[in-house]
Amino acid sequence: MQKVGIVGASGYSGEVLIELLARHPRVSELHVASRTHAGKSVREVLPRLDGIAGDLEFIAADPNGLSKLNIPIWFLALPHGVSAEYAVPLSEAGALVIDLSADFRLNSAETYAEYYGHAHPFPDKLQDVPYLLPELRCKGWKKATLIACPGCYPTSVLIPLLPLLKEKLVDGEGIIINSMSGISGAGKKETLFYSFCERQDSAVPYGLGCHRHLAEIEEQLSMAARKSIQVQFTPHLVPMSRGILSTIVLPGRTKTGTTEIISCWEKAYQSKPGVRILKDGGQPDTRQVLGKNRIDLAAFHDKRTGNLILTSAIDNLMKGASGQAVQIMNLRKGWPEFAGLA
Amino acid sequence: MQKVGIVGASGYSGEVLIELLARHPRVSELHVASRTHAGKSVREVLPRLDGIAGDLEFIAADPNGLSKLNIPIWFLALPHGVSAEYAVPLSEAGALVIDLSADFRLNSAETYAEYYGHAHPFPDKLQDVPYLLPELRCKGWKKATLIACPGCYPTSVLIPLLPLLKEKLVDGEGIIINSMSGISGAGKKETLFYSFCERQDSAVPYGLGCHRHLAEIEEQLSMAARKSIQVQFTPHLVPMSRGILSTIVLPGRTKTGTTEIISCWEKAYQSKPGVRILKDGGQPDTRQVLGKNRIDLAAFHDKRTGNLILTSAIDNLMKGASGQAVQIMNLRKGWPEFAGLA
Amino acid sequence: MQKVGIVGASGYSGEVLIELLARHPRVSELHVASRTHAGKSVREVLPRLDGIAGDLEFIAADPNGLSKLNIPIWFLALPHGVSAEYAVPLSEAGALVIDLSADFRLNSAETYAEYYGHAHPFPDKLQDVPYLLPELRCKGWKKATLIACPGCYPTSVLIPLLPLLKEKLVDGEGIIINSMSGISGAGKKETLFYSFCERQDSAVPYGLGCHRHLAEIEEQLSMAARKSIQVQFTPHLVPMSRGILSTIVLPGRTKTGTTEIISCWEKAYQSKPGVRILKDGGQPDTRQVLGKNRIDLAAFHDKRTGNLILTSAIDNLMKGASGQAVQIMNLRKGWPEFAGLA
Amino acid sequence: MQKVGIVGASGYSGEVLIELLARHPRVSELHVASRTHAGKSVREVLPRLDGIAGDLEFIAADPNGLSKLNIPIWFLALPHGVSAEYAVPLSEAGALVIDLSADFRLNSAETYAEYYGHAHPFPDKLQDVPYLLPELRCKGWKKATLIACPGCYPTSVLIPLLPLLKEKLVDGEGIIINSMSGISGAGKKETLFYSFCERQDSAVPYGLGCHRHLAEIEEQLSMAARKSIQVQFTPHLVPMSRGILSTIVLPGRTKTGTTEIISCWEKAYQSKPGVRILKDGGQPDTRQVLGKNRIDLAAFHDKRTGNLILTSAIDNLMKGASGQAVQIMNLRKGWPEFAGLA
Repeated sequence: MQKVGIVGASGYSGEVLIELLARHPRVSELHVASRTHAGKSVREVLPRLDGIAGDLEFIAADPNGLSKLNIPIWFLALPHGVSAEYAVPLSEAGALVIDLSADFRLNSAETYAEYYGHAHPFPDKLQDVPYLLPELRCKGWKKATLIACPGCYPTSVLIPLLPLLKEKLVDGEGIIINSMSGISGAGKKETLFYSFCERQDSAVPYGLGCHRHLAEIEEQLSMAARKSIQVQFTPHLVPMSRGILSTIVLPGRTKTGTTEIISCWEKAYQSKPGVRILKDGGQPDTRQVLGKNRIDLAAFHDKRTGNLILTSAIDNLMKGASGQAVQIMNLRKGWPEFAGLA
Repeated sequence: MQKVGIVGASGYSGEVLIELLARHPRVSELHVASRTHAGKSVREVLPRLDGIAGDLEFIAADPNGLSKLNIPIWFLALPHGVSAEYAVPLSEAGALVIDLSADFRLNSAETYAEYYGHAHPFPDKLQDVPYLLPELRCKGWKKATLIACPGCYPTSVLIPLLPLLKEKLVDGEGIIINSMSGISGAGKKETLFYSFCERQDSAVPYGLGCHRHLAEIEEQLSMAARKSIQVQFTPHLVPMSRGILSTIVLPGRTKTGTTEIISCWEKAYQSKPGVRILKDGGQPDTRQVLGKNRIDLAAFHDKRTGNLILTSAIDNLMKGASGQAVQIMNLRKGWPEFAGLA
Repeated sequence: MQKVGIVGASGYSGEVLIELLARHPRVSELHVASRTHAGKSVREVLPRLDGIAGDLEFIAADPNGLSKLNIPIWFLALPHGVSAEYAVPLSEAGALVIDLSADFRLNSAETYAEYYGHAHPFPDKLQDVPYLLPELRCKGWKKATLIACPGCYPTSVLIPLLPLLKEKLVDGEGIIINSMSGISGAGKKETLFYSFCERQDSAVPYGLGCHRHLAEIEEQLSMAARKSIQVQFTPHLVPMSRGILSTIVLPGRTKTGTTEIISCWEKAYQSKPGVRILKDGGQPDTRQVLGKNRIDLAAFHDKRTGNLILTSAIDNLMKGASGQAVQIMNLRKGWPEFAGLA
Repeated sequence: MQKVGIVGASGYSGEVLIELLARHPRVSELHVASRTHAGKSVREVLPRLDGIAGDLEFIAADPNGLSKLNIPIWFLALPHGVSAEYAVPLSEAGALVIDLSADFRLNSAETYAEYYGHAHPFPDKLQDVPYLLPELRCKGWKKATLIACPGCYPTSVLIPLLPLLKEKLVDGEGIIINSMSGISGAGKKETLFYSFCERQDSAVPYGLGCHRHLAEIEEQLSMAARKSIQVQFTPHLVPMSRGILSTIVLPGRTKTGTTEIISCWEKAYQSKPGVRILKDGGQPDTRQVLGKNRIDLAAFHDKRTGNLILTSAIDNLMKGASGQAVQIMNLRKGWPEFAGLA
């Protein structure tokens, strides 16, 4: 049994983290820190969680103060740029820090500066922080005290693609990714654009060619393929609260058929409860993963065009954020991988 | 002023047709025929239209009976396979027939049989029936008495692509189309799959590599490019009532930039109120075309990847069906192109 | 043919007003003024209207400047408190002013101050401005140059109740009104509460016992009954863009049955296309009035309890605001009552 | 640790039951029986549950066969009329049977016949089966082997009203209940009415004066008040998947103010995690109870009208069905009341 803390718990992924950790069988105590809600109770700020979080109160989110609390596991659900200021002192103070932000997802400080518009505050750390997709354990994950939790779009893209690249079933050239996301992906927003009336009946692309998640997608794909890979990534907003659906087209340059893809996935994800491989023409549907820490995958080799189409669905707040973060904790602590996630 | 008839007026596109035609300044009388609702009033079957359709009653949908009514313009909002049985006798009896079904959209009887699963009842007619996108008037449209109204997905794809292919700004190789559609695209359905609870929070691909609209997309693209063109077309259902958003990726083999694309569109669609070309990074949004007989277009040349991304949005029941059908009537009768469509 | 102007055209009811007036057969020219968008084009601020509004630009919303434009009809789609500053000079300059705000809906300056929190700027005017439900023409409507357009909730409540009170079929004691509204009723809002994720799956009451529309409901009911009437009015927000559904319970103190109610309504609303009376157990459904300038009504006398239940549905932006405002213009100008509204 | 079975597990409440029981800390084995899916796996019929239910398969739903399995706890998520055929043999065979259907909710066989249209198959049993709201433990709940789980609307109405009637804070005359429900309340339906396009933007009343839940609401209220109580109950469908919001108006005949109501509730529901009492003007919101086994309550005494307004929100599939059924099991087995429900 462990004490666990969350910094930045008032956003959508913070709310899900509290829910998951409050009923986690190995978590004895939960602490929540907030930069804006210190002194308020969780039930006041997040009334849906009344009855789950007891009398839990937000404490002040001062990195040094939090370091002294001797909490051995911290989750950071903070905006990029802010998260690093907590990640470094907390992990240096000996805690396991699982960072849901983008601050330590990239290896390259240059790429970070290009996509996030400011220099990385701890460029020397970047190489050491593992980017951990729990199903595809990376080098260093067992010892790291600071772990980067993959982004929502990247999770939906990397789980289908990485094993195929590693096994050289596909060559990684000319990959076209179209994703559609529910609106919680944007966080809690106070703008007209995210209002109900503006989003109902709206499907709209955004961030063409420059979405920040593109950087981590390409970096991870390139590492798996051991060569530089560029993809075309076009995200879209569609009128749902939660969920990401990704449709990935690989132009038909290989002879790889649906069977080989499925076999490769089955080998890579054997007995992983977080990955469901659909066969016989079934297609991933975001509704079928709602509230679940799972990715649904399907592959279709179009014999007519020669193209390969991979599709995936996740809940952006579960497998795309908080569920995955808890899965990382479980793995790192040697607990059952899906403890608290059923 | 003309009398106008609709066969199959009780579906979603039929309902919109009645709305548009009842307020059309050149339509003096409206007749509606139904295979299942003969004898009932429009207000009983489609209560939203009460007050628009007066005491209008559905008459029986017998092709021969309808032919004798001397109604000079007919709209067919019928399922494929059924529509042809009306289209031929009505047009042979001298009426202008605008067919919203897929029955006469293809030139090739072979392709029809392959995609629709049965032999075409009038294969000899196929070559003569124009497939009319009003903004891109095709050969024969001025004299034809039977006109095929393009499908919803094809409209969203062909308007951005056809001028580029005709002008050889793009070569047509390796085109990847991802579309997302509102649920009315499936028609009035009595199945669990289309129920509110199953569709809310659901984004799901379907018809991979075999959707029927693929046939007309490829036939039209091939005609424009004067060579055989194959595309990868993946439609998706997303939780909205109306709207189609298409994202088209053309792999980076040409030097064509955004400016050239925009110029080509501006030339092709100069002073067409049904086409809105977005510049300065704006993206089409299905909400912005809701209830409008318009397509919104944007182009983005990704310098990093070399790929060209075209995006478009329509209301599937307006520019994707009934609005476009009325626009065809206007054009064919020499009326202002947007009469009744503002 | 007349020139028409709108002040405050960038909100949801302003947008619908532009749509309706741009295609109105008697409107020759449309002018739009905005306090925040002067100099911008309508197509830029309200892209959905591109193609409808041509090159129309927002002009500055200075009351004196607008007065000098010699535009004979003005619609005010402004917040309460602001609207009066335009209504008075424009109407005094000789224009017909149709005010969609609440500024001149009440007769009592005292009630205005109580509900709106500030003194009315023109208390002496209040008695002279007719509150015009087009189906129930009030005293003075034919000559007034300033007319108050009823609010959305009040319209849904007054149309079913007023004739019954006037005819003394019900006594007005103990009326309980529960209404549910789509989210556009709140206007264009930049707050978390109105964001898509917070509204999806949310039904919530608000404004218990103090909603501003309560004041005009009671004032109108009291005038019709010629005695003071108090009602219990509880509005709710439900996750839809548009629509109001009101369920009104009148405790069982009279012998009035469903038949008498229907007869009374039929007499009051004979040949009014804006009122649809449902019989045989049908119930009003907001979807069936979407985009329509109509109210649907039903009555049910529960023999078991003795209570009478009246239900109504409107589109809050049409019969509840902009459609009704256009209907008022038509009526006042002697044009067909539904010109431009079909 | 106990073995538990569910009959009728393929509907919406069945699905939630499987989720809850699969992660319940006291449930060692889960068995699911289905009248239509015997032989299929849960993951095939309810793909969202893949990973939760392991290789669980639906077994045949033969009442006698199931009786012989020696499963000590059964949940019945079956249609009314069918449920009784399982409830009696299973409970007579010694199991604890928690019936989510309406079959044993009423005491009066006459009322059952009136509201359900057929004679009750076991009229003699009706008096013996407790109707158990876990927060308000009724006579006989400790020993009963067959327990009726309250309906969704009744739960939202009885929890606020019962303590007030028992304590005679309100007299029960003239109660007006308006409820709005999400669409899952109707079950899995294959009809046009429940399709996405028909429900979006639709708020509609139904079942006026005759909804089946009216019978159990009145029976329970009458028992608490020790006199016959009649209410006016009007349910509405609104476009959301889950949730019930009830607004209850009690005409102003008592001097009871908000403070007395809150005190009475606090006394009745002291330390009950399933009841959250809102103060300071907060209102229940279905979104805030989504996925939670909780009811949110508020009271407002309108001094102007004298009326008392009680509002409540539940998730119809949790506190309104499956969550409450699990809570009943916990209570009956002496386990922590919220085991498996956090």
